[in-house]
Formats: sequence, C-alpha cells, structure tokens
Amino acid sequence: MLNEGDLIYLLDDKDRRFWLQLQKDMVRVQGLGVVDGNKIIGQEDGARIKLAGKDFFVFKATVIELMESLERGPQIITPKDAATIVFRLGLRAGDRVLEAGVGSGALTMALLNAVIPSGQVITVEVREEFAARARRNIERAGLAPYWDLRIGDVKTVDLGMTVDAVALDMPDPWLALDNIDRFLRPGGRISMYVPNTNQVADAVNGLKERGYLQVDALENIQRRIEVHPGGVRPSYENLSHTGYLVFARRPAKG
Amino acid sequence: MLNEGDLIYLLDDKDRRFWLQLQKDMVRVQGLGVVDGNKIIGQEDGARIKLAGKDFFVFKATVIELMESLERGPQIITPKDAATIVFRLGLRAGDRVLEAGVGSGALTMALLNAVIPSGQVITVEVREEFAARARRNIERAGLAPYWDLRIGDVKTVDLGMTVDAVALDMPDPWLALDNIDRFLRPGGRISMYVPNTNQVADAVNGLKERGYLQVDALENIQRRIEVHPGGVRPSYENLSHTGYLVFARRPAKG
Amino acid sequence: MLNEGDLIYLLDDKDRRFWLQLQKDMVRVQGLGVVDGNKIIGQEDGARIKLAGKDFFVFKATVIELMESLERGPQIITPKDAATIVFRLGLRAGDRVLEAGVGSGALTMALLNAVIPSGQVITVEVREEFAARARRNIERAGLAPYWDLRIGDVKTVDLGMTVDAVALDMPDPWLALDNIDRFLRPGGRISMYVPNTNQVADAVNGLKERGYLQVDALENIQRRIEVHPGGVRPSYENLSHTGYLVFARRPAKG
Amino acid sequence: MLNEGDLIYLLDDKDRRFWLQLQKDMVRVQGLGVVDGNKIIGQEDGARIKLAGKDFFVFKATVIELMESLERGPQIITPKDAATIVFRLGLRAGDRVLEAGVGSGALTMALLNAVIPSGQVITVEVREEFAARARRNIERAGLAPYWDLRIGDVKTVDLGMTVDAVALDMPDPWLALDNIDRFLRPGGRISMYVPNTNQVADAVNGLKERGYLQVDALENIQRRIEVHPGGVRPSYENLSHTGYLVFARRPAKG
Repeated sequence: MLNEGDLIYLLDDKDRRFWLQLQKDMVRVQGLGVVDGNKIIGQEDGARIKLAGKDFFVFKATVIELMESLERGPQIITPKDAATIVFRLGLRAGDRVLEAGVGSGALTMALLNAVIPSGQVITVEVREEFAARARRNIERAGLAPYWDLRIGDVKTVDLGMTVDAVALDMPDPWLALDNIDRFLRPGGRISMYVPNTNQVADAVNGLKERGYLQVDALENIQRRIEVHPGGVRPSYENLSHTGYLVFARRPAKG
Repeated sequence: MLNEGDLIYLLDDKDRRFWLQLQKDMVRVQGLGVVDGNKIIGQEDGARIKLAGKDFFVFKATVIELMESLERGPQIITPKDAATIVFRLGLRAGDRVLEAGVGSGALTMALLNAVIPSGQVITVEVREEFAARARRNIERAGLAPYWDLRIGDVKTVDLGMTVDAVALDMPDPWLALDNIDRFLRPGGRISMYVPNTNQVADAVNGLKERGYLQVDALENIQRRIEVHPGGVRPSYENLSHTGYLVFARRPAKG
Repeated sequence: MLNEGDLIYLLDDKDRRFWLQLQKDMVRVQGLGVVDGNKIIGQEDGARIKLAGKDFFVFKATVIELMESLERGPQIITPKDAATIVFRLGLRAGDRVLEAGVGSGALTMALLNAVIPSGQVITVEVREEFAARARRNIERAGLAPYWDLRIGDVKTVDLGMTVDAVALDMPDPWLALDNIDRFLRPGGRISMYVPNTNQVADAVNGLKERGYLQVDALENIQRRIEVHPGGVRPSYENLSHTGYLVFARRPAKG
Repeated sequence: MLNEGDLIYLLDDKDRRFWLQLQKDMVRVQGLGVVDGNKIIGQEDGARIKLAGKDFFVFKATVIELMESLERGPQIITPKDAATIVFRLGLRAGDRVLEAGVGSGALTMALLNAVIPSGQVITVEVREEFAARARRNIERAGLAPYWDLRIGDVKTVDLGMTVDAVALDMPDPWLALDNIDRFLRPGGRISMYVPNTNQVADAVNGLKERGYLQVDALENIQRRIEVHPGGVRPSYENLSHTGYLVFARRPAKG
C-alpha cells in the first residue's frame, strides 16, 4: 500500500514517468501540474488511477527506477555496471561499504539497496557540489538514514572504522590503495570503475603490487532487445562504452 | 575470522581454488588430499597459510565464488546474468522471491544472498534430480535456512503465500503467468531467462497481454580484460551467448 | 594526380568533408561556397591547398568515403556489413552480381568496386524513387558504366543472363529464391540482409529447403576506438544493431 | 566447370570439407583416402558426386573457404578482419599493395583476391619459415602469379616501387612508418592490425605525428546466429577478441 512520504512515480500510457513524494496535500509534479496526494495514499502499489483526466499507473519507486531517473552521461554509473559492482563485491544486508567518488549518487543508491537495513554506506567525495546533488537524490529516495556522506579525499581520509568492501569511481583509484589499506578488512573486496584501458592497466598493476588477489577486469555490454509486430531484434539505439570494472580481494596482512 | 562450519576455499599461486567446510578435524579436500582444519580455524579471512608444504591464501566463500565453483554450461545462469536479475528485480533484505527452474542452484544462491537474513526464496522445481543437486549446493553454502524448496510445477502449484518477485528459468515461462497471477503482489516484479529470440517474443507478448508494465528485454555481454606485460586487451577466450533476460512490473488488479 | 571529372572531397582541419566534381571552372561546393576547379586539377591526391583563405587537403573519393557520405539510417547497409557481404560472396574483378533492393546505392557501390572493370552489377528495384536516388549516387561516383539498373521485382524478373552472386536487401528475400534459381550459376553465392531474427530463421530455412549449402548467419558489431590524451577506450557513441547477414552457396541442380 | 589444376573441396553431409588439387589421376585426400580426379574434372561447380560410396558436393574454393581452411589462432587475421581491411583500404582490381608480416598468408589471400588480375601484392616478411608456409598456401590457391614475396624487414627494405596501399601485421607497425614514407603514394592508405590497446595508441599517435589523415581505429566483433528447431539465438561458441584495426590516409608531401 502506498503511504505518506513514499517516493512514487506515475506511469502514463507512453511509458513516461512522473515523480512525486506522497503528501496528504496538493503536490506539484514536474511535467504534469498539481496532483492531489490524498487520491494516491492508500492505493495499492501498481494501482490504476485517473488524475487530471488521464489514466496512470502509480508505482512505488525502487532502485532501478531511481537510477534510471538520474540524467545519463559518461560520468554516471549505469544500472548494468552498478548491478555487477554490487554482485561481485558480494554485498549483503549488514555490510559496511566505503564509496569514493559520489557522482550523482547512482551507485550510492545501488550500494545502499544491497546493505540496508543493518548495513551502511560511507561515501567520501572531494567536490562539495557533487556531494550536495547526491544528497538530494539519496534523501529523495529515503535512503539517507543508512548513509554517511563525508567531504574529503579518499587518498588521505581517516575513516575511523573498518569496511567490508570499497567501491571507487575516480580517475586514479590506485593512488588511494595505500590509504584504503587502513580500512578494508582482511578478505574484503574492492571495485574500481575507469573509462580507459590504460587506467585498467594501472588499476590491475596497483592491486597486484599490493598483494591483492583474484584481480579481474571486465567490461559489460548490454543490448536492449525489441519485440515489435515485424519481429525481434536488438535495439537500433545506443549500445556504447561506459567503463571498465576492476575487482580484487584483499588478503590478510603479514 | 574463520570459524568451524564456514565454507572456505584455499587459493594457490596459480589462482586455483580448493574447497572445504571447516571442521576441528582432518578434512579431505578434492585435488589436495587431507588437511588439518584446526590449522585454519581462527585465522583471519584472507590469511596466508602453509598446508602440505605449499602456500595458500584461505578465504571465506561468498556468492560470486560459489557460483563460479559450479560447473559451467548453457543451462547455468552465469554471474553476469544473475547480477542483473537480482538488481532489476529490485531485491533487498526482507523480500520474498519465487524461483522456478532451479538448475544447479546458481541463481538461487544469488537470490538468497540478496534477501537474507529477513527474506526468503521459495523454489519450485519439477525434476527431483535437479532439486537434489541444488539442495547440496545450497546446503554447502549455508543458505538452506532461508530456502523453501518444493517439488512441483510452477504452472499449477498453490504457493499459499504472496511474493515480492518471481524469477523464472524455464523454456516456456509465459505459460506460468496465469498461475503466478495468484501469488505475485501488486507492484511486484518478474524476470524470465530464455536462450532464444522467439522465446523473448513469446515472453514479452505474454506479459503485455496480461497487463504487465515496464516490459524490457535485454542481453548482457561481458568481456574479460587482460593486462599482461605486452599491453591491455580483451581476453582471447570465450565471450559467448548465454540467454536473454525479460523483466516486467505487475500492476494492481481491477 | 587529380583530373577533370574526378569526384573529390576537401578535408578541413576538423575532419569535415566538402564534396565536388572537378571541372575547369568555378564550382559550387555545399557548405563552402564557390571554388575554382583550376586550382585543384593537376594537384597530387592528398595535396594541401588554400581555398577561400582556409587550408584543406584534397583527396580523390573512394568507396569508403562515398558510403560514409550517404545519410545513415537503419535502411542503409553500413560499411561494416558491405565489407562482409563483398568478402563472403567471394567477389573479384570480372564477377557478375545481381543486387535486389537498391536502397540509396550504398551496397551497390561496394559491389561495383569489387567487380570492376571487367565485371558488372545488375540491380533490380521496384520503387522508382529509390532507383532514381541511387542512380544519382552511382553516377556521381563514376561507376554508372558498370551498372545495369532495372525497375522490377526480383521475385518475377527475367534477368536474361546468369550471375555469379546475388545480394538481397529486402524484407522477404526467401520469396525471391524460386525466381533466382533461374539466374544464379551452380556454385554461386547468395547473401541476404535482414534486421530481425525471425527473418533470419525464414532466410536460413528457405535456403536449406532449396538445397543451398554452407548456410551461415551472422551479425557484425563494430566499435570505434578512441585515443585521446587521457587514454584509450571504445567510443561513447553509438554501436547499435544494423542487420543480420545470411550467406549460402548454391549446388548444381539434378 | 571444374578443370584440371583447380583447388576444390568435397563437402560431406556433416559440412566437413576435404581438399584436393584436381588432376587426371588418383589423388590422395587427407581424411578420405584416394580419389579419382577424372570423376570430378568436367563436373559443374557444386555438383553432387559419389566417391568411395559416400555422397559429396564438390565446390571450387574461393577466398573465404581458403581462409577458413587455415588453422585458427590469435596470430591469424580472421575473415571478419580481412574483409574490413580490404574494404577500408579501398582496394580494387589493379591496385598494388604492400603487406608486411605474412603470418600464414590468410590476409595475403584476401588482398590478392581484391587486386587481381591486373594488380599485385608485395609481401615483406623477416622470418623465412613463415614465408615458406605462406608460400605453400598461396601456391595452393593458385595466386602465386600475382604475388611478390620478399624476405626482409619492412622497417628498412627498399621496395623499388610505389604502392597504393599498405597492410601491416606486426607488433610495432609505427616503427615502419618512416621507411614506408618512401613507397606509399600520395592519397594512399594504410592499415595496421594489433592485439593490444596500447599498440592502438602508439599506432594512432605515430600516424598523426607523421601527418596522416582520417585516422580511425576500430574493433570488429562477429557473432554467428544459429537457427535450430527450438528457435534463433547467437551461437554458444566463441566470440572472442582478435585484434584492433587502425586505418589512415596519406597526404601528399610538402
């Protein structure tokens, strides 16, 4: 059932999504105008409702729609790569993850989704304006209680705790390894996201030089498949490069 | 710290993994001979230890190594596809998932990893020998307490409960939709995994005919990238087709 | 050396190409204004020249630039697919090729380039406006002397000669096979270009039912690689589906 | 019609190919035993014949089957890449091409096929044993009359003539550019084939530093599509990395 405070989207018959935070009041919805929250609260997830004379389905937002709602661009970690990072870091409820490089918070959402309610994501970001934008996105998603955002440089920050996993999205993640050595638990995992192959080489070599094991680099390509009256085929639309992913597992010291 | 009962693997200097369940006793390890569990219990995760005159790192197994330890084949859902299924189903701790078609339990592990400790996976499988093999794999992984395995046909089974998500790995998943209608909650999600494009068409059309929304089909291609002294390049080894993934979200009825 | 009548392009320092047919006269060049042909005639291929106060390199056009100069779109056979068609049809100077479905003449150019000066391309096209547009492109490329364009339907046309190879770009190429049977020489080859997988099935099955051998279907994916100061990576730009290619070799009858 | 001296293959009902050079005599065929050439000479290309109690189709070999008959491996340029090289070099009958790095002659065959009968391929190869193996393959294909094989180093060789295009398959093709400068005609084209991304960077930068234009790097991925009774899907078999292709066009000097 949809409750006050939920982040929801209205889906129209052209698959467009209109977003709102449910309130017992009139709410301004971008692209739609003003909508009465009282007509939505108490409905089932996925209910069909009529608003402003048009039909919509109303759905509670989850991580995939939240990520898709952020503007695309080379600088955003896409769902395909976020899924692989979450999975190959082995994240579970209760894990504590360090993230560096917040971007617009897309990967942050995916990490949070995997470790809540008992786990935590600590994000370190140098640029205040990136941090502010990500904070808005995480708050809107209702995930702020599980998130610890710190302005700082992951190459020097003193975290004051141990983490189970580290996810780096920055141009030179290998330069953060010596500092990360202080926080990542034995047996913990690390991921790095970089766009260029020379960065893959530096990442892989930097990890191996520091004794990391199970060092793997990979690229995800995801194609949408379209079913239309004439047949089935891959989409004519963009299937482009996003970035490379590097993973490793940390041994115990000594 | 590694404890009695943990499923661990020994990693040698050629990246081979040798698996054992920790006991305070001598344990037979396939490919290695007999090993003294007492020497491993109490070590840190990722510790270096000497066994039978050779050096190993000892790691606690997590979902990715567990999946990689199952034999490959067209019939097994690979980590790249499992990661996407878990992510696009929006799974979190506490969710209840119905799986049909257990294979060797590879996807089951990934689903369990995402929803434990407060969630549950219910798997329906027709073939007893598949169920038995999967049960061995899930028990070995210590995930059995969160798992409800039932011998039966997802096209007719009476589940007796509601689920948040459904993951189907069977040749004709669209034929299960009418029965699934009784169990999948409003707003819940479904995934289907099929190898052929004509099955993608039947899956997409079957979902749309029943009013499912946000119907998407996609294919994941994952390339390993190798860093060697001469340079960086994609692996010369196989990057082949596995299957197509179809996703949809269920509206509320009426 | 560049001669009167040559089709050339001017390349500016932003890699833009401006096209003209060389004349001993002032020539209007789209995007540039009027240019004096006398200043270009007699120059070496690839010469640097100053026109209208700007520096250009002047190059004689060949098949790849000609194809790239046609507007893109799902309906145009791209260089990557044209290269594969020409190659897998085994074309050489002297071969006679039947093409059906002219599009804008992109594949026609590639076929002509492979078989001239002693060979010939016969193109059959139903739609007069497509034929007219392709004719302009082929004439501009100076390839018209080797080309026989006929308005008609390849499913019924009487060609009046035998061909070494057939290249079909039409929605239902399998329906043309019975008629093509009258023209394709024993041991000759056929290619079909179709966007959808169900068409691949119909094409492959249609060929096999008629006794064709070495029936192969494939898809080409081509990624541009970018070298920039920060490193090397695949292009962020589109790498999308174009079409599937089906090839076969015809046995002798009886 | 099949003539004495033709290189042909027998195709059995399992799509296996058995190769022989036609003679008016008994011929030993690897994998088959001894076959009477007189029964094949005079048959149509693609004819069905009975040999040693089994049915075969007999086909004249062309470039694609010749390339497929060479053993595969990272060191052989595959048909997909050869097709792109021939096409993007803009080769036609009459062109003269310099090739360096002969491998087993796979690309040589593709280049020869494109420029004969009036053109020529000059191949420069340092290693005598590679040259000898390639010579056997080219002679068998009947292409030796159009081929000029020279033992030597393309970085220092004095070619004594001008060429329209250059195709390099060697680890450090950029080191050959200064010498090639003496042979490649203004407006001519060059291709380089390298497995690693760092080599792509060196190739692209080496070309740009020497004033080459239209410098492009790309990778071809080719997937086989299978049509079987259950449906249509990409092959489960290998789709791996082969190499990157770099192309450029040479300006006139001065």
